[in-house]
Amino acid sequence: MPATAPSDVLEKLVSLCKRRGFIFQSSEIYGGTGSVWDYGPLGVELKRNLKDRWWHAMVRARDDIEGLDAAILMHPRVWEASGHVATFTDPLVDCKNCKKRFRADDPKIKGTPGTPDAQCPVCGMKGTLSEPRLFNLMFKTYMGPVEDSASIVYLRPETAQGIYVNFLNVQQSTRQKVPFGIAQIGKAFRNEITPGNFIFRTREFEQMEMQFFVEPGTDMHWFEYWKEQRLNWHKSLGLAPERLEFHQHSKEELAHYARAAFDIQFDFGGTLGFQEIEGVHNRGDFDLSRHQEYSGKKLEYFDQPNNKRFLPFVVETSVGADRTTLAVLVNGYREETVEGESEGRTVLGLHPSLAPIKAGVFPLVKKDGMPEFAEKLTAELRQRFPVFYDESGAIGRRYRRQDEVGTPYCITIDGQTMQDGTVTIRDRDTLQQERVAADAVARIIQARLST
Amino acid sequence: MPATAPSDVLEKLVSLCKRRGFIFQSSEIYGGTGSVWDYGPLGVELKRNLKDRWWHAMVRARDDIEGLDAAILMHPRVWEASGHVATFTDPLVDCKNCKKRFRADDPKIKGTPGTPDAQCPVCGMKGTLSEPRLFNLMFKTYMGPVEDSASIVYLRPETAQGIYVNFLNVQQSTRQKVPFGIAQIGKAFRNEITPGNFIFRTREFEQMEMQFFVEPGTDMHWFEYWKEQRLNWHKSLGLAPERLEFHQHSKEELAHYARAAFDIQFDFGGTLGFQEIEGVHNRGDFDLSRHQEYSGKKLEYFDQPNNKRFLPFVVETSVGADRTTLAVLVNGYREETVEGESEGRTVLGLHPSLAPIKAGVFPLVKKDGMPEFAEKLTAELRQRFPVFYDESGAIGRRYRRQDEVGTPYCITIDGQTMQDGTVTIRDRDTLQQERVAADAVARIIQARLST
Repeated sequence: MPATAPSDVLEKLVSLCKRRGFIFQSSEIYGGTGSVWDYGPLGVELKRNLKDRWWHAMVRARDDIEGLDAAILMHPRVWEASGHVATFTDPLVDCKNCKKRFRADDPKIKGTPGTPDAQCPVCGMKGTLSEPRLFNLMFKTYMGPVEDSASIVYLRPETAQGIYVNFLNVQQSTRQKVPFGIAQIGKAFRNEITPGNFIFRTREFEQMEMQFFVEPGTDMHWFEYWKEQRLNWHKSLGLAPERLEFHQHSKEELAHYARAAFDIQFDFGGTLGFQEIEGVHNRGDFDLSRHQEYSGKKLEYFDQPNNKRFLPFVVETSVGADRTTLAVLVNGYREETVEGESEGRTVLGLHPSLAPIKAGVFPLVKKDGMPEFAEKLTAELRQRFPVFYDESGAIGRRYRRQDEVGTPYCITIDGQTMQDGTVTIRDRDTLQQERVAADAVARIIQARLST
Repeated sequence: MPATAPSDVLEKLVSLCKRRGFIFQSSEIYGGTGSVWDYGPLGVELKRNLKDRWWHAMVRARDDIEGLDAAILMHPRVWEASGHVATFTDPLVDCKNCKKRFRADDPKIKGTPGTPDAQCPVCGMKGTLSEPRLFNLMFKTYMGPVEDSASIVYLRPETAQGIYVNFLNVQQSTRQKVPFGIAQIGKAFRNEITPGNFIFRTREFEQMEMQFFVEPGTDMHWFEYWKEQRLNWHKSLGLAPERLEFHQHSKEELAHYARAAFDIQFDFGGTLGFQEIEGVHNRGDFDLSRHQEYSGKKLEYFDQPNNKRFLPFVVETSVGADRTTLAVLVNGYREETVEGESEGRTVLGLHPSLAPIKAGVFPLVKKDGMPEFAEKLTAELRQRFPVFYDESGAIGRRYRRQDEVGTPYCITIDGQTMQDGTVTIRDRDTLQQERVAADAVARIIQARLST
């Protein structure tokens, strides 16, 4: 059963994801919305499972991290304090002739923008490109009935600031003591000039961010701790260890707020290669001190036992939920030949806890009471986890259909079932079938899902 | 133990929600963002539990509803087709003197706007109010580098349209047959002129919407079915049946797209009284036919067994997640005296499945091995559900603190625990304590949570 993952699976995944209902282009019937995607029936379950695993690992299973769900629309001063209004920009150039706009570093531009030699990559005119001007990547809108500068609000470009401005509210209401963290899952928006690569870089995306507040001086200890924790989490999703690596930000790469930063990169293969799916950052006291300055509110933590006040340092872990979903899909995708069968199969080797459908239930034939038995079993299992009942076509085809969407188990009701009440459970990866009592199926599969 | 729910609990809830970490004003340190709220550590768990119950009831436990997670940013033509660009408006008037803007029906305006007699409620000038003009309630932004009319996109004012434009993608990828539904949970945004009443009417909010696609002629049957299903769901959350009622839209109230509409209203008490928390609507084929017309794409369903094509009718169920969260809080809030105690208590009588913390774990005193035993039990329980360990203060105070946030069970480790390994479980509502083996606690509570 030799498995081959094509060198660049992205194209195949886009097609599979549409055909099987994982991911659709947004507003497709209107020609699509620029680099925005909708999650279909299987995609929404996959992403929910991924987010639930993060929430469990980062919030519910720990006593030192609190959850939060801050709003997308925040006070505009937040983004002045964070530095986004001033520095979250890309340099763009305009063509005075055709009115198109480009990134200043667009490789299709010939010559230096702003000089007479520069040539527009669209209309081909010379000397029409403006000097680069800074373009802010935040989406802007107006709140209230009047559209003026006083009513500007932004769609948040990251969830982290919602955590910083709530630091004292959370700390005081929960009586947490430093070190502790605040975690949040939510949408963020960036008006990217060059989005792309399916759901890898999109204008609307979802983040899973955790900010860990620590005493200054202990920050590098916690930074190392979180690097290891987060890498292990990605491995626990089944991502191949050899496809994961750390990338340390050099001094030149470091953001203005960061004292140290590592990306966790995943090898997407093909032309994408290793790309960031999570960032672990030591942000020092940059954020809290800026919000203290801009809001005029003290954000210091009072360390009662030691009778001292300080502004905590922050170690941040920031995962892209969509990127990690894509990593899980790329990691799991394989095409393989099956011994003794002429037709190959496509498999999504998803971790059982992430698979959108946990079990397919099939009556071998559409008679002799098998459909009724299978439907009853399906209804029972559905109260515990998502299952799919399928009675159409040859049994081999039904297995293949489930392999392709990552269903880890398939249960078949056959002639023997009608005699002794046993069914077969087929494993997606090993293709082994075991025969078990029908009334033990729920318990057996549930046990495997929680390991 | 006579319980009294104050006639208007909203004010008390706002305070409790902030103090205990359910809900904070957004960007509070900057003076707040207009009618936007953040969910704190307990609020995010409460709302997650509510959403999970809806998702389970509407998607996972059924074989005729598929999940979806469409993006917030959609193609702008979607909102022309839906009618929102043309008709999702409020009439506003401007004061030419002080430049303020008001709803035309603002009761503080004296006289008829646009006439010389009309008096501005802010500056007091006469004859300065303009005639009413229509103001669209959708938040508008620009996608891409150029801010012009071709790059306008809207923040969706409802999630439903994401379902309609994906109708065929979902139907074809899942091979569902009409009647079937598509369900979605997600944020929506409305630039309300008069938001208010805490999280009841906010500019950023979350909807749980399901669109059920049926054959024309069967729509009123399904409409009645969903009315009953949805009312029962609210009752299953523990909302008092006498606080729930249907409100039928009269012909005058019916939206342009609706053939029939009922609101499910909840009695919030006080000045709010009965207000809509969910709408059940028979939308006919309005939406699909409009999207067919505006996109130029056929959206008909092919009924293979009967070899016919038709545009399905839609029965919609649309719940406000924030409103229902507020209903659950209002419904559960009570202040009561306890027999034999001088101090009363405040209780949030939340359904155990919704409670953010499922159990408090308390060592009776901070010695004799009780804290160690309690911490070990806490760590074990935390792997299954959220728990809170508390060793500070008198035991009575610790019970009260959990009562106030709706924790259904409190487990106390006492002297007898150290001898025979038993603990007490105290029930929030009955105040009864039962003594059970410590190693049975997880199983006992888990069983109660799932009923």
